[in-house]
Amino acid sequence: MFELGVVKRNIVRADRVAVDQLAKFGASTVHEAMGRVGLMKTYMRPIYAGARVSGTAVTVLLQPGDNWMLHVAAEQIQPGDIVVAACTTDNTDGFFGDLLATSFRARGAVGLVIDGGCRDIKDLTEMGFPVWSRAISSKGTVKATLGSVNIPVVCAGMAVQPGDAIVADDDGIVVVPAAMAQKVADAAAAREANESDKRARLAAGVLGLDMYKMREPLEKLGLRYVD
Amino acid sequence: MFELGVVKRNIVRADRVAVDQLAKFGASTVHEAMGRVGLMKTYMRPIYAGARVSGTAVTVLLQPGDNWMLHVAAEQIQPGDIVVAACTTDNTDGFFGDLLATSFRARGAVGLVIDGGCRDIKDLTEMGFPVWSRAISSKGTVKATLGSVNIPVVCAGMAVQPGDAIVADDDGIVVVPAAMAQKVADAAAAREANESDKRARLAAGVLGLDMYKMREPLEKLGLRYVD
Amino acid sequence: MFELGVVKRNIVRADRVAVDQLAKFGASTVHEAMGRVGLMKTYMRPIYAGARVSGTAVTVLLQPGDNWMLHVAAEQIQPGDIVVAACTTDNTDGFFGDLLATSFRARGAVGLVIDGGCRDIKDLTEMGFPVWSRAISSKGTVKATLGSVNIPVVCAGMAVQPGDAIVADDDGIVVVPAAMAQKVADAAAAREANESDKRARLAAGVLGLDMYKMREPLEKLGLRYVD
Amino acid sequence: MFELGVVKRNIVRADRVAVDQLAKFGASTVHEAMGRVGLMKTYMRPIYAGARVSGTAVTVLLQPGDNWMLHVAAEQIQPGDIVVAACTTDNTDGFFGDLLATSFRARGAVGLVIDGGCRDIKDLTEMGFPVWSRAISSKGTVKATLGSVNIPVVCAGMAVQPGDAIVADDDGIVVVPAAMAQKVADAAAAREANESDKRARLAAGVLGLDMYKMREPLEKLGLRYVD
Amino acid sequence: MFELGVVKRNIVRADRVAVDQLAKFGASTVHEAMGRVGLMKTYMRPIYAGARVSGTAVTVLLQPGDNWMLHVAAEQIQPGDIVVAACTTDNTDGFFGDLLATSFRARGAVGLVIDGGCRDIKDLTEMGFPVWSRAISSKGTVKATLGSVNIPVVCAGMAVQPGDAIVADDDGIVVVPAAMAQKVADAAAAREANESDKRARLAAGVLGLDMYKMREPLEKLGLRYVD
Amino acid sequence: MFELGVVKRNIVRADRVAVDQLAKFGASTVHEAMGRVGLMKTYMRPIYAGARVSGTAVTVLLQPGDNWMLHVAAEQIQPGDIVVAACTTDNTDGFFGDLLATSFRARGAVGLVIDGGCRDIKDLTEMGFPVWSRAISSKGTVKATLGSVNIPVVCAGMAVQPGDAIVADDDGIVVVPAAMAQKVADAAAAREANESDKRARLAAGVLGLDMYKMREPLEKLGLRYVD
Repeated sequence: MFELGVVKRNIVRADRVAVDQLAKFGASTVHEAMGRVGLMKTYMRPIYAGARVSGTAVTVLLQPGDNWMLHVAAEQIQPGDIVVAACTTDNTDGFFGDLLATSFRARGAVGLVIDGGCRDIKDLTEMGFPVWSRAISSKGTVKATLGSVNIPVVCAGMAVQPGDAIVADDDGIVVVPAAMAQKVADAAAAREANESDKRARLAAGVLGLDMYKMREPLEKLGLRYVD
Repeated sequence: MFELGVVKRNIVRADRVAVDQLAKFGASTVHEAMGRVGLMKTYMRPIYAGARVSGTAVTVLLQPGDNWMLHVAAEQIQPGDIVVAACTTDNTDGFFGDLLATSFRARGAVGLVIDGGCRDIKDLTEMGFPVWSRAISSKGTVKATLGSVNIPVVCAGMAVQPGDAIVADDDGIVVVPAAMAQKVADAAAAREANESDKRARLAAGVLGLDMYKMREPLEKLGLRYVD
Repeated sequence: MFELGVVKRNIVRADRVAVDQLAKFGASTVHEAMGRVGLMKTYMRPIYAGARVSGTAVTVLLQPGDNWMLHVAAEQIQPGDIVVAACTTDNTDGFFGDLLATSFRARGAVGLVIDGGCRDIKDLTEMGFPVWSRAISSKGTVKATLGSVNIPVVCAGMAVQPGDAIVADDDGIVVVPAAMAQKVADAAAAREANESDKRARLAAGVLGLDMYKMREPLEKLGLRYVD
Repeated sequence: MFELGVVKRNIVRADRVAVDQLAKFGASTVHEAMGRVGLMKTYMRPIYAGARVSGTAVTVLLQPGDNWMLHVAAEQIQPGDIVVAACTTDNTDGFFGDLLATSFRARGAVGLVIDGGCRDIKDLTEMGFPVWSRAISSKGTVKATLGSVNIPVVCAGMAVQPGDAIVADDDGIVVVPAAMAQKVADAAAAREANESDKRARLAAGVLGLDMYKMREPLEKLGLRYVD
Repeated sequence: MFELGVVKRNIVRADRVAVDQLAKFGASTVHEAMGRVGLMKTYMRPIYAGARVSGTAVTVLLQPGDNWMLHVAAEQIQPGDIVVAACTTDNTDGFFGDLLATSFRARGAVGLVIDGGCRDIKDLTEMGFPVWSRAISSKGTVKATLGSVNIPVVCAGMAVQPGDAIVADDDGIVVVPAAMAQKVADAAAAREANESDKRARLAAGVLGLDMYKMREPLEKLGLRYVD
Repeated sequence: MFELGVVKRNIVRADRVAVDQLAKFGASTVHEAMGRVGLMKTYMRPIYAGARVSGTAVTVLLQPGDNWMLHVAAEQIQPGDIVVAACTTDNTDGFFGDLLATSFRARGAVGLVIDGGCRDIKDLTEMGFPVWSRAISSKGTVKATLGSVNIPVVCAGMAVQPGDAIVADDDGIVVVPAAMAQKVADAAAAREANESDKRARLAAGVLGLDMYKMREPLEKLGLRYVD
């Protein structure tokens, strides 16, 4: 675990059908459907607004200021993958730009989640290649030290196994363990079905206090109304 | 003060006519008109660009990871209110999303200022329901612990009384004590009237050094020009 | 050096032709062409997306909460300049807004880089006057204490001499010493010429591993492939 | 409120006897006795370990980089006061050092709480004059712009009225509204009396699960034990 | 994985003999012996200087502002354990103080690592119960929401399995997978044996450049000496 | 400037006699004597309290996660030097520990200022080798990429030329340009001579308001006293 200098070639990816379903629900609904776990830290932000993707994780462990392993990872990408890049230490350098995005897309990647910096924002936006990163930075990187590909990593505070399902949008990034993808997709669907009715009632002026029957438990805890 | 478990129902709101005037001046002009006070911390950012609102504060004191009091607050909202939510500790969880926004809007709220996280960014943007928050986060919250509604709070570094006037736009969020709303609106109007002439002169190439008669005081303080 | 209360009038600006060339390459390419140096800290962000400018630095050293020296600097601006404002301490106040932008533009400035706060975001966006800042803030400033203009400064972690070439876009801000502007522009051009071929090959599915001949050095360092 | 350029001379201080009792309980116990409110942000740290004081607040509103109002405040200090200094914006400059400490002590102050920087750490430590600050900084300040003394302020996220009781130690800083000082001191005493018995039982190996009768509510919420 | 509401009773702890050896090497040497992995984020700091411990991890997943699971965890502690507490979101509240420390010590715990806040610093220092935390805070917590005990967690950026070996001192906190404890202890011993000779040579004035034979590789990469 | 891969051997060091005088005044007094400039960012902290040193700068530009250049720098150290290490990007890795400290001390260095991480805190404290750093971290570094030695750098926000005088203590770190060392030492001496009289008067209860004749300028600016 966390070994440096290793590339794992055969990984078990989450079921494609299940993974594809996750994107339509988005990060917040999937996070709730998971039982409110799986969310990366909120410092991760999309480089442009409006993208929403799901895919299977090809994981990368980078060294600070060194993007060599992203090139190694490119070879391991299969269509529908999202590359998830962690770093052995906090680092905001510009590990990724339009050339690597061109390569990743040619391999079938649908996005990148990187606990580091990204550059060529304008080009990536025009390409429509979505990236979630902790920083935007022109800082160039070297190719000198080994990291790893497709080992378990911690990216932005969340443990990610290669092959896990990833859902990312404007709200954030959620990691769904591969074996749970379909179950979570089903739970998300159930949750969403449930929400449209709630939305209509709230829009009509019904209070959550009444719809969720909160008045009694609030009173029990001692909530007092004063004038 | 700062009591937990209390909801105050009858609050004195700033004068509606005065409050409505504030939005057109925006946060920066109102802040100056107040004598350069009243501004919340700059980590508070709008979830989408371009919104500018003013309203009267319904205040909420949240517990970390718990959005129960936002449901309690919904009932206290009157048309033209802005909900101002503080938290008993620093917390970025996603206390607020599209369902609560639907409810708040149905009650007449024109926006939310929350010293915490917000989610469903895409939906809120499409709804045009403006939120200023310290973070964007999918992190779900529970409904387990009492906070308060309509007590004095400190939100993003600024003291807010229920009923105070709030002005928020891309520049930030300013709190105007309810009793000062009209006076501040008048001062903002005077300030803005004054600015168009200045703008024209500066555009014509007149220097601020001359227009504001700064050369003499600068010289007195010892400013030296060298070649 | 770092003397307070001094305005230098005659500075040697980087060659205009060279400086004008830099904008088209952008910050990331220029940074690489410099040998991966010259980049300001990544907390500096454009107030709106999509701007890309290059210009010659008029430097300003501000005092916290005091924008007086920006007015002093306005007089020193020549067409094609970018004002680069540092502060004697970390400060996010709103030193700059639409009135100063009107004045700066009238003098020929093409942008502002400020290690402090900026306000009137909506107006500046409509004017198309690009600003890179560490914060957005309505906080007003005073005019009470002397700083300096056109002395060497450190802005967002990078040393800037008056007259240096500045390149700024969505990726960040790069400082090119005045004497190196043409050499860097040439190196950037060579770099970019080289990139279009690489991009085509990567788009066709060629791996960076092969294109950059990385397999042998990776193997030498001990990279292991496992199944 | 928040008016600049005002010094209030006559303030109502919390009862001296009550205030003196608070120090022996410390910040954490007093915070609990208040109902878990009143705590300043955790970025405030003592400049040396081991100090524990309580006193009545003389409040100061500073401008960034300007310590003039601390001199104005010195005149308002009475024996047993703690000076509580806020700033109109985030600023870490060294507003306070050994000369001001000498003056404050001569007036009877027992400590300083400052949402800004402090310097002369070695001297202050030797003097035994305790300071809680957000930073340590040599950065000198000017005397150029008016703030206020003894107006309500927000210091490190907490609202403070002049005359409020302040308790500060290694755990943090708690603000007790003046009118509540005795009531809080009594609650703290009751709380502490209660703790020694608990401590003995826990030391003897009794579990909090049993002592606080937590097993049943945990089970009701669904806590599952697995092997 | 990451399931809420679960307590695992039987965990496989790293070998006691191996774990006990780790403390004498300290975090930095163990981290190097691991191959430069396993280190928690540097924002984790000891509440007092000079402690150095190793132990086996009892893991806890807390909810923000809620320390209930620390009481649940107490029952799972065995002599030689270190409690490792993560939180579902960033939170600095004072989850832990002298009462829980008394209970943990009675159960045999040798320390606490918590990605949250700690209080009662003075008491804990006097007790000699070492804590590494992200903050010091008086902020009280509630007992209202379920987390988990002895599930895999991510604490301060590092994945921890229950039973893993933990080494903590003034330099930081390193996580050693349970199965690797003896191997890492051996590697650390070898490393340290190697260091005393190096230290003596460096103290005698031998340069690392010569001792590590760096001159040739530096020259190959093009390092230039100028006068 | 900022060239990578260069070691400058012959640098002009500030006058030894002047540099030695600076330590006794400390960072805050020297900073004031410089005219309130020259201070590094306040995130730089000593690894142990109480050290106060002055020396001449041997500068280093590090790459993130790579401490090779510290070994290269060791050879350039002369007795009385302080090594000042900057990094091409923000990085907190543990670049420096007891082995390098042993080597630096053997060469005559009196301290290290590093805009990065430091480890072996316990050993360095016992050795009495003072380090000012931005972080404490066990994180190991590699030796793979060239930086430079004795080029101008920006360290913690301040420009440093090789040979500049450095003064560091608990209050912070000040950079004195080599050519100004004696002049600054004289100004610091004058300032300190002046302070003992002020201190005595303040201790006797004289107010700064009177001693510095502040009442009149405060009144002119409009300061109002209310009851």
